[in-house]
Amino acid sequence: MKYGLKKFWSVVAFALLLFTVSQAEAVRPAGQPGKDWGGPENAKCAECHMKESPGLWKQWNESQHGQNGVGCLDCHKAAEKDVDAFEHKGQNIAVLVTPKDCAQCHATEVNEQQRSHHASAGKILHSLDNLLGEVVGGPAAVNVGCRQCHGSVVKLDVKKRPTTDTWPNTGIGRINPDGSLGSCSACHGRHNFSRAQARHPDTCGKCHIGPDHPQLEVYNESQHGIQFRANINKMNLGSDKWEAGIDYTAAPTCSTCHMSAVPGRPKTHDVGERISWNLRSPISNRINLIRLDNGTSFDSPDGKPLPKVGDMIEARGGKVIEVITSEERRGRMQDVCFACHGERLVTGHYKQLDDFVELYNEKFANPIKNIMAELKASGKITKSPFDEKIEWIWWEIWHHEGRVARHGASMMGPDYAWWHGMYEVAKHTYFEFIPELKHVVGEEEAKRLLEKHFKPIAGHDWYFNGMNKEALQKINKEYEKRYGKGSVN
Amino acid sequence: MKYGLKKFWSVVAFALLLFTVSQAEAVRPAGQPGKDWGGPENAKCAECHMKESPGLWKQWNESQHGQNGVGCLDCHKAAEKDVDAFEHKGQNIAVLVTPKDCAQCHATEVNEQQRSHHASAGKILHSLDNLLGEVVGGPAAVNVGCRQCHGSVVKLDVKKRPTTDTWPNTGIGRINPDGSLGSCSACHGRHNFSRAQARHPDTCGKCHIGPDHPQLEVYNESQHGIQFRANINKMNLGSDKWEAGIDYTAAPTCSTCHMSAVPGRPKTHDVGERISWNLRSPISNRINLIRLDNGTSFDSPDGKPLPKVGDMIEARGGKVIEVITSEERRGRMQDVCFACHGERLVTGHYKQLDDFVELYNEKFANPIKNIMAELKASGKITKSPFDEKIEWIWWEIWHHEGRVARHGASMMGPDYAWWHGMYEVAKHTYFEFIPELKHVVGEEEAKRLLEKHFKPIAGHDWYFNGMNKEALQKINKEYEKRYGKGSVN
Amino acid sequence: MKYGLKKFWSVVAFALLLFTVSQAEAVRPAGQPGKDWGGPENAKCAECHMKESPGLWKQWNESQHGQNGVGCLDCHKAAEKDVDAFEHKGQNIAVLVTPKDCAQCHATEVNEQQRSHHASAGKILHSLDNLLGEVVGGPAAVNVGCRQCHGSVVKLDVKKRPTTDTWPNTGIGRINPDGSLGSCSACHGRHNFSRAQARHPDTCGKCHIGPDHPQLEVYNESQHGIQFRANINKMNLGSDKWEAGIDYTAAPTCSTCHMSAVPGRPKTHDVGERISWNLRSPISNRINLIRLDNGTSFDSPDGKPLPKVGDMIEARGGKVIEVITSEERRGRMQDVCFACHGERLVTGHYKQLDDFVELYNEKFANPIKNIMAELKASGKITKSPFDEKIEWIWWEIWHHEGRVARHGASMMGPDYAWWHGMYEVAKHTYFEFIPELKHVVGEEEAKRLLEKHFKPIAGHDWYFNGMNKEALQKINKEYEKRYGKGSVN
Repeated sequence: MKYGLKKFWSVVAFALLLFTVSQAEAVRPAGQPGKDWGGPENAKCAECHMKESPGLWKQWNESQHGQNGVGCLDCHKAAEKDVDAFEHKGQNIAVLVTPKDCAQCHATEVNEQQRSHHASAGKILHSLDNLLGEVVGGPAAVNVGCRQCHGSVVKLDVKKRPTTDTWPNTGIGRINPDGSLGSCSACHGRHNFSRAQARHPDTCGKCHIGPDHPQLEVYNESQHGIQFRANINKMNLGSDKWEAGIDYTAAPTCSTCHMSAVPGRPKTHDVGERISWNLRSPISNRINLIRLDNGTSFDSPDGKPLPKVGDMIEARGGKVIEVITSEERRGRMQDVCFACHGERLVTGHYKQLDDFVELYNEKFANPIKNIMAELKASGKITKSPFDEKIEWIWWEIWHHEGRVARHGASMMGPDYAWWHGMYEVAKHTYFEFIPELKHVVGEEEAKRLLEKHFKPIAGHDWYFNGMNKEALQKINKEYEKRYGKGSVN
Repeated sequence: MKYGLKKFWSVVAFALLLFTVSQAEAVRPAGQPGKDWGGPENAKCAECHMKESPGLWKQWNESQHGQNGVGCLDCHKAAEKDVDAFEHKGQNIAVLVTPKDCAQCHATEVNEQQRSHHASAGKILHSLDNLLGEVVGGPAAVNVGCRQCHGSVVKLDVKKRPTTDTWPNTGIGRINPDGSLGSCSACHGRHNFSRAQARHPDTCGKCHIGPDHPQLEVYNESQHGIQFRANINKMNLGSDKWEAGIDYTAAPTCSTCHMSAVPGRPKTHDVGERISWNLRSPISNRINLIRLDNGTSFDSPDGKPLPKVGDMIEARGGKVIEVITSEERRGRMQDVCFACHGERLVTGHYKQLDDFVELYNEKFANPIKNIMAELKASGKITKSPFDEKIEWIWWEIWHHEGRVARHGASMMGPDYAWWHGMYEVAKHTYFEFIPELKHVVGEEEAKRLLEKHFKPIAGHDWYFNGMNKEALQKINKEYEKRYGKGSVN
Repeated sequence: MKYGLKKFWSVVAFALLLFTVSQAEAVRPAGQPGKDWGGPENAKCAECHMKESPGLWKQWNESQHGQNGVGCLDCHKAAEKDVDAFEHKGQNIAVLVTPKDCAQCHATEVNEQQRSHHASAGKILHSLDNLLGEVVGGPAAVNVGCRQCHGSVVKLDVKKRPTTDTWPNTGIGRINPDGSLGSCSACHGRHNFSRAQARHPDTCGKCHIGPDHPQLEVYNESQHGIQFRANINKMNLGSDKWEAGIDYTAAPTCSTCHMSAVPGRPKTHDVGERISWNLRSPISNRINLIRLDNGTSFDSPDGKPLPKVGDMIEARGGKVIEVITSEERRGRMQDVCFACHGERLVTGHYKQLDDFVELYNEKFANPIKNIMAELKASGKITKSPFDEKIEWIWWEIWHHEGRVARHGASMMGPDYAWWHGMYEVAKHTYFEFIPELKHVVGEEEAKRLLEKHFKPIAGHDWYFNGMNKEALQKINKEYEKRYGKGSVN
């Protein structure tokens, strides 16, 4: 074919593409009924809801569901015997779409999610956080606060609609009337169910944000977050296949590291699978993942004897089918790192992280925890949490500042590791916890406790012996050189 | 027409479009003078300012104003008698462009804005916030802080230019020399006056941010903010017609809910029209909107007798022309919700919000307010605000933390509703306010006050009777199961 | 040429463009080896690393380096005698790429950077911040926190690889084994070295964020940040020539004001060149920039005699080659302002900023600093920093809140200037510093100190004489009108 002619046909092909695209839009024009809504029953839903709540309808219509013939009833239809079924325009439907409903088509994803740490987030109902919320705050604060992330126990009114106390709710560990856990729309916002949106770090930030779990803030400060926001158009976020290092290289999102595919490792909706440290608890420990044949899993800390495949775990009602050690979990995360980084960088990062967590554990968390235990044992404070100021101080040191520090270190946000994190841990240990300890038990007993629990730790030397004079002089000299004579006051 | 040929002409049409676009750009090339600057007088301005401040000129040139023949003098020209007019290169001009100037073309928008809550933001001059700023901080802090959002009283120097103390200023309630209130460029940043930018939530975040009004932070955490940032390219932000649920469905911005059009409801620049709760005051109340014939309006709380259309309101110098009850205001906001949501979700949201605000009011704000009133009445503290520590504690409980909590609940930011909000309210009530109360009035009088104002409220039971032991045991058991034996210290 | 035919060829040209673009991509397909990797030796690196760390390789491949034949060894090759050289697959290479390596091609940029304030960020090793980190926190916290921004002293293990304690590290003042300072990839994230990404404000926010230097947060709140995020697609961020007001007008980024070109002023990698106030130190002062012939520079505060060109500065081992006064530095920054703003706005901004800094200096920082000096001189507190609570209070007033306030004012973030800034400075001065002072020295001595250092300052009148009753009554009246009778409690 001659060159000019070949070009001509290229042009025609291009124009044809444009035409096809415009035709595709034409069959489902914005704000107008189309021709195919996934069958005549779904069309009936659409006809009414495109007027009643046009945005909802249009979100769905433009989604992959809408574009592939998955209609309203495919998700909202209920069997007459379902606990949450009610009659609506001649159909039995339910307001709630639960993971069980989604599993009709997405069984793998739902099975992974149901055994994940996410699915158990509703268990906060029996936790210190919940005591705080219910008793110190109030039930209405739990509904609007805690449960919007952790999930409500959805209850139904006499008409089988979810009650207004427990709905709306898209908590990741929502306890649904059908027994399933969580809500897929916690991340895949309704009604467009977008992959691209779910992979966006802001999605995780709906809950992983704030004084006690600022993962989003840490990510945003990190090189990873910087590269993501500067290169979002190169992230290929909507792609079906989305393998880090192959289908995109600009940056990892939360999803990349914790869930998505990388060379040699498939994606997973079991979000904790690649996590080797528990950075949430008062004292951090390395954790092994035990999966059971009843579709659940749990973490077992390093140091505790590991069950073997085939063992029955009575307390959890299932047999062990898989044990992933903390070292293996770390290996899975490092597979992600290696998509873009070399060995030295990955090794160095984990070395620095481990040292940091150990510093938190050994210098601050352990001695305070041990002193608190003595105070309770000796009756110096009550067994109840939160009724004495010293309990609040320790609570915030580990639950707020200590978590900020540890997550700052794990995800490379230096400001969170230090200023929002370890700086606050240290300041509050020395200038809130210790003074309050003296207030509670008196100077003498405080001295005994500090000498027992703090003094053996080298990092507290300065507290007992004063700061090293030579080091101070050197620093002061450099400091005055920079900021001027007399600035060190 | 044969298919191939039809395609050919489609291609030609497409190429013609490309050509036209490039021609449109060619007549106003970047950094080069064009041919039409809105008449010869405006052209004179442009000729000089494209060298003196090329960015300013180019912003305007590329704006809808610039592209439609609205030139420099159409906004900056002043009558000789205007208080802020001065001669510049043979023209009487003013530095300030006030809402009165914008009203030449945008009368509807300006009239709505002039009667809105925004327009009265400069009245902070007579408020506690201002006392804090002027007296505790200092006038220079008020200029750079408070007044950059609330607006300065713009003064003129001998040459009729705004003084450097009061300018630059784009406060939303700026008090202009011509008597008009506010500044359109507070939201429509000069000199491109962009609709798209004004609809972006960050625009509102210039002021609605921070410890006492973190609306932007709450929005960013909410599903609404998540969907906005993940789908910004689908938001159609620059569209002339911009009706939620029709012209865009990805997410609402601040503007969508508070100002923009939805099916059945027109847009408005009266920004408070759809707000049914006052979430800013020490105690929240539902508010009714009263509009007067002098172009102003005000909020009247539920419980206070409502004026009727035609009533003269002497204190405000106008006759009532419209009364919008808090219920009607709520209905207008819900019209926005219904663009994308069904009935159950909307009802549930408002139920949870109302319960939350009531918890704040009844459990925390009211009893503290009553105790503070007794302290002042009995002379235990002075009548001056801010000269005693206990006043700062109460101030931050309602003005900072209580607002964060309430706005967190109203806009679905669970972290703000709870951790940044109600958690802080509760912590500071029990562990700052009450200890300081004891410090101020002594243990015995504090006990009397607490038994009078706190004890009748069920939510404070735990404070007087200790935490329920059964509940505690249950929680501790679950907690240790999760975090390991001995972790509850 | 006839119109129809001309259009035809336009179309052909357009199609040819599409074809060319697709061809350009075809020679370096995603995940496949290409044909030209900057020579056969670089090709050997690529062949292996495209499998070992495909993302790293692809980032480089798509970068300007990759597209212009600059390959792996051009940066990573080392001379055998280099301290950090090791043999790898037959080549002497180094893990670290230092500014000295980059200077092979980018000498101007590196020279500017080496003399800049950025390059000396590693000197924090002799500062109060570092004492805090090392002693109060712990060395592991310094690695993960401070040094990730300030830079580590990179050490090498026996195999000449950087040690895992000191690597990974991209601190802006990193002290490299070859003696060069900093890391170009601190801002130009490896391995894509993107101009566009380096110009993005989030890049600067990796370090300029948080409680003691929240420049990113301030920028994001400012009109500049609002316009940037709303108009990011118009920012032309990847352009080679990037002159504000000419090549883009939507908004300035951090880079625009501090580094990039504007009409009449070239770009610079000496990041402090346009800064006329030191807003970091306990007391702010105007600073003059002295450049030496040894490639370094330093700031000299206003008031101190300025050296002249040719003077030898013994302590710094170099002769003065240039003196840029604080006024000249300010002029250079104002050249940036004038790209988009007129004279009145720029003058007004600097007037308001100067007044604000003076308020901070005179009303708060100076009197507290003087009192602290008396306390140390009289032995009321030790010479050591950080071992008494009052030192922490003063430290946070100047180092955290005072910096937030001053940077809030300098970059037009009203919420940071006031609520996060001066409000906290004032609150902590009156309700933390003064009470702690009384605690440390007793009521009587505290009174003497306050009357000596605070009372002569007009802004503290209210503290000594109570708030003005008339002003209070007026405010209370207006306040109750807005919020209801009895709301001022």
